Amino acid sequence: AGRPEHAHSKIYDRTPSGVVMGLAYTSMGGSTLYIEVAKSKFTGEETEGKVQITGNLKQVMSESVHIAYTFAKKLASAKGNSFLDKNSIHIHVPEGATPKDGPSAGITITTALLSLAFDKPVIPDLAMTGEISLTGKVLPIGGLKEKIVAAKRDGVKRVIIPKQNKHHWDELTDILKEGIEVSFVEDYSEVFKIAFDNSL
Amino acid sequence: AGRPEHAHSKIYDRTPSGVVMGLAYTSMGGSTLYIEVAKSKFTGEETEGKVQITGNLKQVMSESVHIAYTFAKKLASAKGNSFLDKNSIHIHVPEGATPKDGPSAGITITTALLSLAFDKPVIPDLAMTGEISLTGKVLPIGGLKEKIVAAKRDGVKRVIIPKQNKHHWDELTDILKEGIEVSFVEDYSEVFKIAFDNSL
Amino acid sequence: AGRPEHAHSKIYDRTPSGVVMGLAYTSMGGSTLYIEVAKSKFTGEETEGKVQITGNLKQVMSESVHIAYTFAKKLASAKGNSFLDKNSIHIHVPEGATPKDGPSAGITITTALLSLAFDKPVIPDLAMTGEISLTGKVLPIGGLKEKIVAAKRDGVKRVIIPKQNKHHWDELTDILKEGIEVSFVEDYSEVFKIAFDNSL
Repeated sequence: AGRPEHAHSKIYDRTPSGVVMGLAYTSMGGSTLYIEVAKSKFTGEETEGKVQITGNLKQVMSESVHIAYTFAKKLASAKGNSFLDKNSIHIHVPEGATPKDGPSAGITITTALLSLAFDKPVIPDLAMTGEISLTGKVLPIGGLKEKIVAAKRDGVKRVIIPKQNKHHWDELTDILKEGIEVSFVEDYSEVFKIAFDNSL
Repeated sequence: AGRPEHAHSKIYDRTPSGVVMGLAYTSMGGSTLYIEVAKSKFTGEETEGKVQITGNLKQVMSESVHIAYTFAKKLASAKGNSFLDKNSIHIHVPEGATPKDGPSAGITITTALLSLAFDKPVIPDLAMTGEISLTGKVLPIGGLKEKIVAAKRDGVKRVIIPKQNKHHWDELTDILKEGIEVSFVEDYSEVFKIAFDNSL
Repeated sequence: AGRPEHAHSKIYDRTPSGVVMGLAYTSMGGSTLYIEVAKSKFTGEETEGKVQITGNLKQVMSESVHIAYTFAKKLASAKGNSFLDKNSIHIHVPEGATPKDGPSAGITITTALLSLAFDKPVIPDLAMTGEISLTGKVLPIGGLKEKIVAAKRDGVKRVIIPKQNKHHWDELTDILKEGIEVSFVEDYSEVFKIAFDNSL
C-alpha cells in the first residue's frame, strides 16, 4: 500500500464485525491499514454473490480481494454459513486517495469477510499480514520490520505473520518485539482459530 | 476537486432535500461545491438500487460516491427507511465541465443521499468536508484553510470538519474563524445529528 | 513466468484436488509453480460456466487458461462429467505479485481443472510442463534444463514433458536426471493417464 506513515491515525479503538487491521509497507515505511467489509443491500436477485471494491486498489491487490472472496465463501459454506453466497459485498480500504497494491492483505481481507459473514469481531489489538492462495495457504510478505514498527506504534498486541517470514521476525531486536505476541501460520485455518478465539 | 475559485457562484440560497454544500480544494484555492442527488425513476425491476454518477468525477471521487452510497443505505435501513433500496439514484456535482477528484466529499455525499431518502433539507448555511469510511468513520482532509476562506466568502455560518483536522482549525486566524460555528466529528452519526438538527 | 527462483518455496507437501505443480522458466532461472483451481460458488443461474483468473497473468498465459478450460470441459464432458459446465471456476497462480506469462502451463492448467472436476488429486511428487492446443496436442516448451533443476530442488520425482523436447532431455547430465522419472507426451490423453494413474 502506498500510504505514507505520517498520514495514518488509528480510526478504530476496537474493530467491529467486518473490519480487520492489516499491515502495509511502502518505500515510505510501514503502516497499519483497515480492511472494511459491508453488506451491500440490493433488492434485485441478480446481484447476489457480487463483490464491489473501493479504496484505490491496483491490480494485484484487487486480485487479492477476489482470491480472498472465493476462499472465504468456500470456508464459510463448509461451516454452514451462506451469508456470502446470499448477499452482495462491498470491500473498502481507507484512505480513499492513497493508491494501494500488493498481495499481502490476503489473510486480512479473508478474515474481514468471515467476520462479517459470522457477524463476529476479531479479538482486540490484532493485526495480520500474509498473502493467501486459493486453497488457503499463507505465503510470505515483504517489509516485516517496517510493518511491526507500525503495528507497535498503533498499539497492536498480537500479530499473525506467515511461517515463511519467521527468520525475519527472529532478526528483529528484542525492544521492537517486546509486548507483541506473534503467531506464525502456514494455513488459513490457523488464522481463523486465532482471530475468532476458537469460537467458530 | 479541480474547480478554480473564481469559477464558483452560489447557486442555492437554501439547499432543498437532496442537496448539500461541500468544500473543495485545489492548487487554485478553495471553493464551495454542491452535491445534488435525485431519484432516478425507472420502470424495470432490475434497475432498483442502482446509482448513476455525473459531474466529471475522477476515480477516487467516484469510489467515494459508492462508499457513501453503501453507508447511507445501511444507515437509512437501520432507521426503517427503505427509499435507497427501492429506488435508483442519480448523483451530480456541478459544474459539469470541471474535473473533480478526491475523497473529501464523503460525508457531504452521504448527507445528500440521506436528505433525499428522508425528504428533509439540512439546516441552512451549512457546509461540510470529510472523507467517510465504509463503517462511517470520518477521516481527515487537506486544504482546510482554503476551504474555510471559500466557505466564508459564500456565507457559510456552520461547518462540519473531521476531528483529526482540529489542529489545522486551531491554527487559523481569529478573523477568518469569526462568524463560523465549527463542529469536529469522528463518526458520521455526529454529522447526521447536526445536519438534520436531531430531528431524524 | 516471472518468478525469481529464490522467491519460491514448496507450499504443498501433497497437492489436493484442483492443484497441480507446473514448471516455469525466466531469465532468472527455473522455478516450480502451482496452478490452483477452485469452484466459485454463485447462486445465480447466469453465472454458470464462467471462469475467473487471478495471479497477475499476462496475455499469453491468460489465453492459455481459456484454451485449457475449453479443452478440459470437452474432455470431462466426453467422460460424462458435467462439473465444469455446471459451475463457475476460479483459477489462481501464486504468488500474486509476480507477473507470469507464456503458454507452457497449458497441460498443467488442464490437469488442475480436471482434478477439480473429478475431485481426484494427481499422483504425488509430479510436475509437468507443456503448451496445449485446443484439441489436446502437447507442444514444446523452453528452458527445460532450468525447469528440471527447479523440479529436482523441490523434490519432484516424476515429470511430464512434450515429446518434442526429448532431445533437450537427452542433452541433460545424468546427475541432473538421476531420481526423476520422465514421460514424453504428444497428446493430452497421455498426460491424463499418468496424472490420474489410469484411474479415470
